[in-house]
Amino acid sequence: MPFERRYIQYKHLVDAYLQRFVKDAQPPSLYQPVRYILSGGGKRVRSVLVLLACEACGGSKRDALHAGAAMELLHNFTLVHDDIMDHATARRGRTTIHKKWDENTAILVGDELLALAYRALLKTQSPRIHDVSRVFTEGVVEVCEGQAYDKEFETKPNVRVDDYLLMIQKKTGKLVSVSAELGALIGKGTKQQVAALRRFGEHVGRAFQIQDDLLDITADEKEFGKTIGSDVQGGKRTFLYLEALRNARGSDKRLLLSFARNGGVPRKNIKDFQRIYLETGAIDAARTRIAHDLAEAKHELRHLRRSPARDMLHWFTYMLLHRTH
Amino acid sequence: MPFERRYIQYKHLVDAYLQRFVKDAQPPSLYQPVRYILSGGGKRVRSVLVLLACEACGGSKRDALHAGAAMELLHNFTLVHDDIMDHATARRGRTTIHKKWDENTAILVGDELLALAYRALLKTQSPRIHDVSRVFTEGVVEVCEGQAYDKEFETKPNVRVDDYLLMIQKKTGKLVSVSAELGALIGKGTKQQVAALRRFGEHVGRAFQIQDDLLDITADEKEFGKTIGSDVQGGKRTFLYLEALRNARGSDKRLLLSFARNGGVPRKNIKDFQRIYLETGAIDAARTRIAHDLAEAKHELRHLRRSPARDMLHWFTYMLLHRTH
Repeated sequence: MPFERRYIQYKHLVDAYLQRFVKDAQPPSLYQPVRYILSGGGKRVRSVLVLLACEACGGSKRDALHAGAAMELLHNFTLVHDDIMDHATARRGRTTIHKKWDENTAILVGDELLALAYRALLKTQSPRIHDVSRVFTEGVVEVCEGQAYDKEFETKPNVRVDDYLLMIQKKTGKLVSVSAELGALIGKGTKQQVAALRRFGEHVGRAFQIQDDLLDITADEKEFGKTIGSDVQGGKRTFLYLEALRNARGSDKRLLLSFARNGGVPRKNIKDFQRIYLETGAIDAARTRIAHDLAEAKHELRHLRRSPARDMLHWFTYMLLHRTH
Repeated sequence: MPFERRYIQYKHLVDAYLQRFVKDAQPPSLYQPVRYILSGGGKRVRSVLVLLACEACGGSKRDALHAGAAMELLHNFTLVHDDIMDHATARRGRTTIHKKWDENTAILVGDELLALAYRALLKTQSPRIHDVSRVFTEGVVEVCEGQAYDKEFETKPNVRVDDYLLMIQKKTGKLVSVSAELGALIGKGTKQQVAALRRFGEHVGRAFQIQDDLLDITADEKEFGKTIGSDVQGGKRTFLYLEALRNARGSDKRLLLSFARNGGVPRKNIKDFQRIYLETGAIDAARTRIAHDLAEAKHELRHLRRSPARDMLHWFTYMLLHRTH
């Protein structure tokens, strides 16, 4: 089966699981928005990665489905709470929970998504359930810490590229590496395989986030499902921004600095940022970094035996590099 | 050792654990408020209950300390998020997190407390760790559902005493029963003992919440650490309110109904509510209900062998009934 079709099949498995999981739950004030967010699409990248990592170690994807769904629930928990904190109005082309309902609802829905994530995870039947739960929990702790760093950066005067990389490793990378590690644990991978898949996830996670930064400034708005340049308007110091700041001179540098001072720039300046990011080599640096991380990720796959699942993990990194949304 | 002294000793064990648990964690924007809330006192009722239930089944309190701390972390997660939703300015005589810092911080601190709760829980060494985690998780799910019902009630025209009892069973009672059940599981209690301690916790939890409603209107403000009558001012339909509404007539009934319509009454009306609650027998009904639940709780203890821990569980219910804050 071609990789794309198989990916969609795995994604459907997860979607169907999630739908079933919250179908008749009460009360409506809580579960209506929960169902809304879970039916809002999303690529289910983390879930599919759990299933593939499990298969690549010799396990069955069915065994990993609970954990796969758990990762998606956990991911949605972070989205709902981050959207409140960022005052975001749209997500995946739809109104965010705190806008469609209110902030109190969004706080509670996020909490519930995290609780449901554990409920799904703990349906896993595995002699390694203690490790599975611990790895998952360290993911939750780090994602909160990453979000705290991200918020600190908004008002911190000097953020360096390295600070940024630490932050995204916690905020974004960790959940990708947890996904791969959980799959490996459930698939009864060897110690070496579990570690290799964790590192695979770290690289993929970082590449994924830098790609996100890149798409925010280079993507096609309709395809992307989010407003282009929202990072620039919102004053978010991304990999691109920090790279550009290192190399920009004169009026370009002043514009970059004013952005940090004012917490963003007006919509009309987005094209200036697009130009500056190109001219300073920030876009090239991002592309190089992504390619490097994905190469490292692929290299980790040597610890796995050849299998259709391993081939698909290979393809997975390729797909991430070429995604448009 | 007298019960009070032993209670304080157990509470200190938990306090010391919690302090150690978050001592050097980074970043400060996240862990400073976490340390603030965890050092703010609190009776550690749930934690002590975990330790006692474990001992009462023949286990050691040291084995249950991780789970005891986890219950306190979980409880504090609910407090921090509920305080945002309720716009509360004070808790345990101190400024709430979202007031002292801001709402974004409070959202994230709550999330982190829940993550830390799982981290502590999963340090438990027990062959029943899968059950321990599942029971804990069902507690988290229900406490979110309970909070959703509580919020629904704020705008629902007809709330009955039974609706209220279901809500507090989820919102407050569940975490008390989870505490007792976790202790029993970790202490290797029999199936019957685990079930008995769960029911013990359900009764104690309900009594505890109705006692809270009662203290809000009858306590000494200084001792209580919260503003008296805050439920009445905030338009919270408590057990007392719903009981009074069943029996009030004339202008008293009109005052009660205006309260529901307007989402509370001014401070000057609190004494009217105190009078109405007394005259309609609502305060008596609450006291009777509490006494009944505590008697049922005590009755469950027959499933345990006689031990100092069982005696202390006995005393525990007595203490709850006579607490002033």
